[in-house]
Amino acid sequence: MKASRFFIGTLKEAPADAEIVSHKLMMRAGMIRRVAGGIYDYMPIGLRSVRKVEAIVREEMNRAGALELLMPAVQPAELWQESGRWEQYGPELLRFKDRHERDFVMGPTHEEVVTDIARRDIKSYRQLPVNFYQIQTKFRDEIRPRFGVMRGREFIMKDAYSFDKDRDGLAESYRKMYEAYVRIFTRIGLEFRAVAADNGSIGGSGSHEFHVIADTGEDDIAYCPDSDFAANVEAADALPLIAQRAAPTEELKKTPTPGAAKCEAVAQLLNIPLEKTIKSIVLATENEGAEPTIWLLMLRGDHSLNDIKTGKLPGLAGYRFASEAEIIEWFGTPPGYLGPIGTKKPVRVIADRTVANMSDFVVGTNEVDYHTTGVNWGRDLPEPEVADIRNVVAGDPSPDGKGTLEICRGIEVGHVFQLGTKYSDSMGATFLDENGKPARMQMGCYGIGVTRVLGAAIEQNFDDRGIIWPEAIAPFEVVICPMGYDRSDAVREQADKLYATLQEAGIDVILDDRGERPGVMFADWELIGVPHRIVIGDRGLKEGKLEYQGRRDTEATLLPVDEAAGAVTAKVRAALGK
Amino acid sequence: MKASRFFIGTLKEAPADAEIVSHKLMMRAGMIRRVAGGIYDYMPIGLRSVRKVEAIVREEMNRAGALELLMPAVQPAELWQESGRWEQYGPELLRFKDRHERDFVMGPTHEEVVTDIARRDIKSYRQLPVNFYQIQTKFRDEIRPRFGVMRGREFIMKDAYSFDKDRDGLAESYRKMYEAYVRIFTRIGLEFRAVAADNGSIGGSGSHEFHVIADTGEDDIAYCPDSDFAANVEAADALPLIAQRAAPTEELKKTPTPGAAKCEAVAQLLNIPLEKTIKSIVLATENEGAEPTIWLLMLRGDHSLNDIKTGKLPGLAGYRFASEAEIIEWFGTPPGYLGPIGTKKPVRVIADRTVANMSDFVVGTNEVDYHTTGVNWGRDLPEPEVADIRNVVAGDPSPDGKGTLEICRGIEVGHVFQLGTKYSDSMGATFLDENGKPARMQMGCYGIGVTRVLGAAIEQNFDDRGIIWPEAIAPFEVVICPMGYDRSDAVREQADKLYATLQEAGIDVILDDRGERPGVMFADWELIGVPHRIVIGDRGLKEGKLEYQGRRDTEATLLPVDEAAGAVTAKVRAALGK
Repeated sequence: MKASRFFIGTLKEAPADAEIVSHKLMMRAGMIRRVAGGIYDYMPIGLRSVRKVEAIVREEMNRAGALELLMPAVQPAELWQESGRWEQYGPELLRFKDRHERDFVMGPTHEEVVTDIARRDIKSYRQLPVNFYQIQTKFRDEIRPRFGVMRGREFIMKDAYSFDKDRDGLAESYRKMYEAYVRIFTRIGLEFRAVAADNGSIGGSGSHEFHVIADTGEDDIAYCPDSDFAANVEAADALPLIAQRAAPTEELKKTPTPGAAKCEAVAQLLNIPLEKTIKSIVLATENEGAEPTIWLLMLRGDHSLNDIKTGKLPGLAGYRFASEAEIIEWFGTPPGYLGPIGTKKPVRVIADRTVANMSDFVVGTNEVDYHTTGVNWGRDLPEPEVADIRNVVAGDPSPDGKGTLEICRGIEVGHVFQLGTKYSDSMGATFLDENGKPARMQMGCYGIGVTRVLGAAIEQNFDDRGIIWPEAIAPFEVVICPMGYDRSDAVREQADKLYATLQEAGIDVILDDRGERPGVMFADWELIGVPHRIVIGDRGLKEGKLEYQGRRDTEATLLPVDEAAGAVTAKVRAALGK
Repeated sequence: MKASRFFIGTLKEAPADAEIVSHKLMMRAGMIRRVAGGIYDYMPIGLRSVRKVEAIVREEMNRAGALELLMPAVQPAELWQESGRWEQYGPELLRFKDRHERDFVMGPTHEEVVTDIARRDIKSYRQLPVNFYQIQTKFRDEIRPRFGVMRGREFIMKDAYSFDKDRDGLAESYRKMYEAYVRIFTRIGLEFRAVAADNGSIGGSGSHEFHVIADTGEDDIAYCPDSDFAANVEAADALPLIAQRAAPTEELKKTPTPGAAKCEAVAQLLNIPLEKTIKSIVLATENEGAEPTIWLLMLRGDHSLNDIKTGKLPGLAGYRFASEAEIIEWFGTPPGYLGPIGTKKPVRVIADRTVANMSDFVVGTNEVDYHTTGVNWGRDLPEPEVADIRNVVAGDPSPDGKGTLEICRGIEVGHVFQLGTKYSDSMGATFLDENGKPARMQMGCYGIGVTRVLGAAIEQNFDDRGIIWPEAIAPFEVVICPMGYDRSDAVREQADKLYATLQEAGIDVILDDRGERPGVMFADWELIGVPHRIVIGDRGLKEGKLEYQGRRDTEATLLPVDEAAGAVTAKVRAALGK
């Protein structure tokens, strides 16, 4: 491609509504333009990267045996009513009526449509397994679309749906998709982690998220650098940090802690490690026609409550934090100095796994300005109910026993999920099994946010000059910047020759023949993020040299003219794993 | 592709709502499935053909210098309000509100969005010309969607929009698109015609439609087999069929024609050629506050009125047919025996070009059961106003003077159109010209109905066994049907080997390894329409032969095993023009 025949729309400034770096840089690089909130044009240079992501996704889906089809964006409400999601889905589901006043939705996802295909066209176990996928424009009416393509309303998804005759088949289809996703994100060239959405082992899990690692990510991910364990912090198993409870060594003692309502203050005041203190969290659950149950959850002073794990405990579904009035009624004191010993009315005590193995610890006395030290289970208070109720932290043991956890931030770009028979039950997707008996299809669904991948790639790869694309999804792999293309015959001839040679070698190259000043050219291509740049000038040519600079390089390297094409081709191919 | 890993969903019967052959065959071949009225799934085998059309379109658009981008399906109402089409567009425009009660449309076309891009990103004449295109899903809320993909509600379009600094530039951009369209439909392998929407010369025209020729087409096209002239019958210039008026030879004579109100009956009764009779058509146009103007349009007895041409004549915009009461008032007689001589009140007479050159012709006498023969212009009635008011018919001279016209039926699959400044005026798309002065961009728009092409291709190419795909858009180019793949080692080995060889040669081949009976296999692939079939059986292999049959062939040819791959590859390549 020659730049004079292309359309480059770089901007000096990002618009004011661009909050995050990928949004700013995609706007400034001219990759996208805003049409409405969360709705964008993909300009030619942006679409090149979209298409490269799509091509990699398509190749790997095909390699995994999935079959591409195309379902409609507009879907009849009847299908959503059958699945029950017409009621369940919130206002993110864009609903409208056609000219005949029939209800439709603009599809944010396609489980209903694909299940409708399966129940109509799949009659026998001999047609299973099958995995249908599409790369398609979707719409989700986000209440506050922002972050550019990271949380847009209209976006491109790859969504796949597998159908199997039994759970083993589903597990196998799931494994193939998991592996395809690993290949896809590896080929795209991103640092990523497959994150268990509920527990850390791929075999046992019904769901994994694929996260691109980036400091600006929205999700906290716990991972083990020594194994492939990775899970959302919210979902990662928090093991007890104390393997076995030590015997008591201290006496129970009421200790004045004036003004020290927080664990940190207590530890400082008493000159003890924070790890000896206990955080008391008071929850309430409703009981119809009776007073609520009040729960006291005990966490180590340096730990934090995990609300998802807590909500899954028996009796705690739909819990709320207790009100101050309730706390005074049950504990006889306002919040700040609460503890499990001597409450005014009975409360249900749950100790975190680590807390359950602590000894000689410190709790509130249920009296303002006092804590109790030297507390021990069994001796001073009954053995507690024990549960995993905290978020993991860096340094925790990995649940797979293979090292310690670290925490990083990630951007979710893919999701694989075992649906089981959720949709085949509600929509009646049945086949005849080997014995001629009707059975429900086992389904899995597998998504990749194609346009979101671009934003995530930028969040992971940028500097103060602009985007730094991985070769596989760069709009161009190489840019040739001739100094004086319009003035110097030697420069122009050499640039044209190099351009032709790189094109023949299959390199996606752009020749900047716009006649812009070097400063403008360099700034444009650094902003756009082309990974390899070659500068051709009269001065260098006199010595038979031209300048090569990788996008991450701090300075240029001189290359002999005749070796440049080969050297750059080799670099691109190496980066693409070819 | 191996059939066992693919998804084939052929049906014995087409659904009752499928009216036309392409709809029936696409359903039966398992290419599409209905989701709602005019909304379809493209199943894997159907999507393969869609993607092949898209690839050809993309290549030729790129070759023509157009730049691919992607605009959103969902568009804000504000843009349509600016262009004025929010009011003008009928209920085909699907409108809805988002969760914040803002108005949006689901785009049936993208002039507004692309003009918004242009006015924002194009500042200078140096950025012109530019031609943006996309291949994208569109929605048009047809009141009665039918004919499968031929008139669906959701469909895939290629739409392109050119921007130029002046009308010469627009003409050049238009020419490039016209030529690209010729290449596209030629490569797809369809018999087509570029049809002038208003007149027959490409240079002077502002609009051409590209029609696939098919007996089932909705449009009548007049074309000249000896030149590239083609136009919608509605738009084609009808030249006078009589070069020069002959001198009168008959006397004016009132002749009884009892019961003969139609020209055919008059000709039969008087034993004269139909070409000597005149058809009188009475139109009316309103005059505010006064009585209407009554027009008498005179056509030769075998010709028909062209309402589009008529409506463009001075004074006839918005005309209507006169009522019986008006006819009696102006002509003194009810319809059936009307003529230009001796009307009761004055009427405006317009003669078709051919009528204007007739002599000794027959008209009604304005008296029931009487016609007047031997009528001559100038002698019996004043010279008429002359205009082209008829539809061309087969045998008419071609307006380009290069032969005679024939008439065929066509399906519109593409349209190129010079918009001029319609949108750049209403939306203020301005650039600075060479003199630094603001000027309005000259726009063109260029559409191809990607999914419609499939339907049109089938309407042109089918037989009673199914579809006959042109190679370029066939879901597979070649099918290998082994007889006893699961039983015979020799057959399986030969089939696998041939499959591998064809794949290596770049042929898009499917191996039917499903283990179906030959009858089922053959019926499936003939229905699906794969253009080349190879049958491998033990009997043939004993003699070193296998069977080749082209989809249009009436019988199979025996080919030596070793020559089969080469022969079939050559056939496919020849068909693709490679």
